[in-house]
Amino acid sequence: MRADAKRNRDHLLAVAGTAVAEHGIDVSMRDVARRADVGLATLLRHFPTREALLEALLHTSFDELTARASELELSNAVGDALVSWVRDCVAWTTEYRGVTVLMAAAIDDAESALHASCATLRAAGARLLTRAQNAGVARSDIDGDDLFALIAMLAWAGDQPALAHRAGHLFDVVASATLARTGDNQDKSAHHEG
Amino acid sequence: MRADAKRNRDHLLAVAGTAVAEHGIDVSMRDVARRADVGLATLLRHFPTREALLEALLHTSFDELTARASELELSNAVGDALVSWVRDCVAWTTEYRGVTVLMAAAIDDAESALHASCATLRAAGARLLTRAQNAGVARSDIDGDDLFALIAMLAWAGDQPALAHRAGHLFDVVASATLARTGDNQDKSAHHEG
Repeated sequence: MRADAKRNRDHLLAVAGTAVAEHGIDVSMRDVARRADVGLATLLRHFPTREALLEALLHTSFDELTARASELELSNAVGDALVSWVRDCVAWTTEYRGVTVLMAAAIDDAESALHASCATLRAAGARLLTRAQNAGVARSDIDGDDLFALIAMLAWAGDQPALAHRAGHLFDVVASATLARTGDNQDKSAHHEG
Repeated sequence: MRADAKRNRDHLLAVAGTAVAEHGIDVSMRDVARRADVGLATLLRHFPTREALLEALLHTSFDELTARASELELSNAVGDALVSWVRDCVAWTTEYRGVTVLMAAAIDDAESALHASCATLRAAGARLLTRAQNAGVARSDIDGDDLFALIAMLAWAGDQPALAHRAGHLFDVVASATLARTGDNQDKSAHHEG
């Protein structure tokens, strides 16, 4: 990519980031083009669909969350590692109002520009979950799909104005109950599941 | 209400019910009026807002769920009663696609036409929860607000095409983990919390 093309692309991404932070991910391509002071055709040349634009925008975050999971895979506190990662994921979605519905759709739609990133994220979570299950500190009857869904559900609750103030507590309730076998002292537990 | 006015109102409600079943609760007043073959002004005379129309539509269901809670309050299996009621609530929302977001907003908005019904439903759930907590078969760190939010989260997941097929399992995971203290044998437990 030529330097000026990259500069233009970065500018469009920065503008889109601001628009999404203000209005959520439902922001229109027309609105982004107007804010960036370019024609719609110019924007579409860089990002042919709104999903492609969002994918570019979310890509860095997805990479960071996946890297964070790899880092946590080295931790001996396997239960804490899992809960901590889920917490990071849920916290991240609050920056992109509405992204949860989009991710919940993309995970099942191989055509979606967001599909690959969502699948990578789900796989990273599944690895942390498996470690915790093998150590007996996470329920054995959930899998990576369930974990992804639980993250989405918690993120959705945090996105609803009337529920947002309970979101932290709901996270603790759902996380401690579904991810850990024995509540507060999960990582002290040495039990393995039968 | 005169007989013909009641007949007209019932007709509008029936038409609205069909429209909501087909298109979810985002159906427009204009669309309902067109389907009912009346002018928008006529529809608005019966139901001044979309929320008022939905409230009338949902009223019977809310009453039924509240009555069901009262019935379950007589059961000795206090944990099962709670889980069963939550299951009924979640199952009911699948009939009204999109209603979850509306309820999550109405519970915190005293001006909403749906507020009173939602608050009654929440109170009914809180009573079942308190009974289960007193018997030591539900977590002591959740309240009626949390229960309402958990129902909304489960209902939301059931409403997302990519998550819907996991909804039953997610219900079991969340319900057994947050509502019961001791897993499968919850109602055999005689422990009280300290």
